[in-house]
Amino acid sequence: MFDEPIERLVEYFRSLPGVGKKTAERYVFHILEGSEETAKNFAQSILDVKQKVKLCSECGNYCTTDVCSICKKRNPKVICVVQEPKDIVSMEKVKSFDGVYHVLFGCINPLENKGPNDIRIKELLSRVSKNGVQEVIMATNPDVEGEATAMYVAKILKPLGVKVTRLAQGIAMGSNIEFADEITLEKALRQRQEL
Amino acid sequence: MFDEPIERLVEYFRSLPGVGKKTAERYVFHILEGSEETAKNFAQSILDVKQKVKLCSECGNYCTTDVCSICKKRNPKVICVVQEPKDIVSMEKVKSFDGVYHVLFGCINPLENKGPNDIRIKELLSRVSKNGVQEVIMATNPDVEGEATAMYVAKILKPLGVKVTRLAQGIAMGSNIEFADEITLEKALRQRQEL
Repeated sequence: MFDEPIERLVEYFRSLPGVGKKTAERYVFHILEGSEETAKNFAQSILDVKQKVKLCSECGNYCTTDVCSICKKRNPKVICVVQEPKDIVSMEKVKSFDGVYHVLFGCINPLENKGPNDIRIKELLSRVSKNGVQEVIMATNPDVEGEATAMYVAKILKPLGVKVTRLAQGIAMGSNIEFADEITLEKALRQRQEL
Repeated sequence: MFDEPIERLVEYFRSLPGVGKKTAERYVFHILEGSEETAKNFAQSILDVKQKVKLCSECGNYCTTDVCSICKKRNPKVICVVQEPKDIVSMEKVKSFDGVYHVLFGCINPLENKGPNDIRIKELLSRVSKNGVQEVIMATNPDVEGEATAMYVAKILKPLGVKVTRLAQGIAMGSNIEFADEITLEKALRQRQEL
């Protein structure tokens, strides 16, 4: 339907999460209707983000310096372990959390041939033993792989005398018991709190 | 929240139609998680689309050659007039249309100080007088400005002996009379067809 350069950009936009053909076409038309200056800056921003952004040498979060701003300023005795840097964005919405993070870049997943040595567990161990860490909060996803990873980390950290906790699982706030699945309800029931 | 290169790319993605902050962040994380090669090609595609894509010298559609593939192959005696190149994408879904297009790049809009000389009406006139055009189909949007533009074009083309038609207006297929607005219903009633 379109000439080659248009089709190719449509395909790149389609590769973004949740973007279908029609949406990708709208994006391309937006670029075509915009100025050449804007398009140049847009392209340069994509290059910049790949070239200038690296991983924090402490926690693995995306940053442009050697150590990220969270690691520099916050309480290093509490580490929240997440699977991906984007999970930090979600956790940071909880303003009350004052600790630091540790990104595993994935989780233990036998089906994908990913063992403990394929994610950043060794780095977590060395941080824990160096800094006198008091608590490690496992914030991996509440699925089979995330659970297994949390269990594994707990097993190897407990002998070091570190408290390992897991985000509570239960009914999401604002949701509806009618539509909650049975696994979530079972967790919520088992972890029920006294009022 | 993010370092500068990330924030900047988030802003560029946000400038795309219908993209909010959260979606833009997901796009940036997708780029960050992808290979540097992919990011480079993505950026190059944006540059290519602005540099290689130009306007068809006949109809004004986006293309990479001097005359677009539609103008080269199809019946030049029937011209469908649209406001923007993206409208051609929609019209092309109607497989039965065998004519060519003419892009006005906007419509007559006094509020935005856009008169007949600010859109490609002169070019339409010269095409019509050159090629022995039989019919001009006005496919401008069904709003005040689109209507006014259709009327204006009809007024200057009719003296040349050209048939000027307008896309039928009425209830959209698959929609619902209950929710149709009164202006649409009035049009549908006035343009009712005998069965």
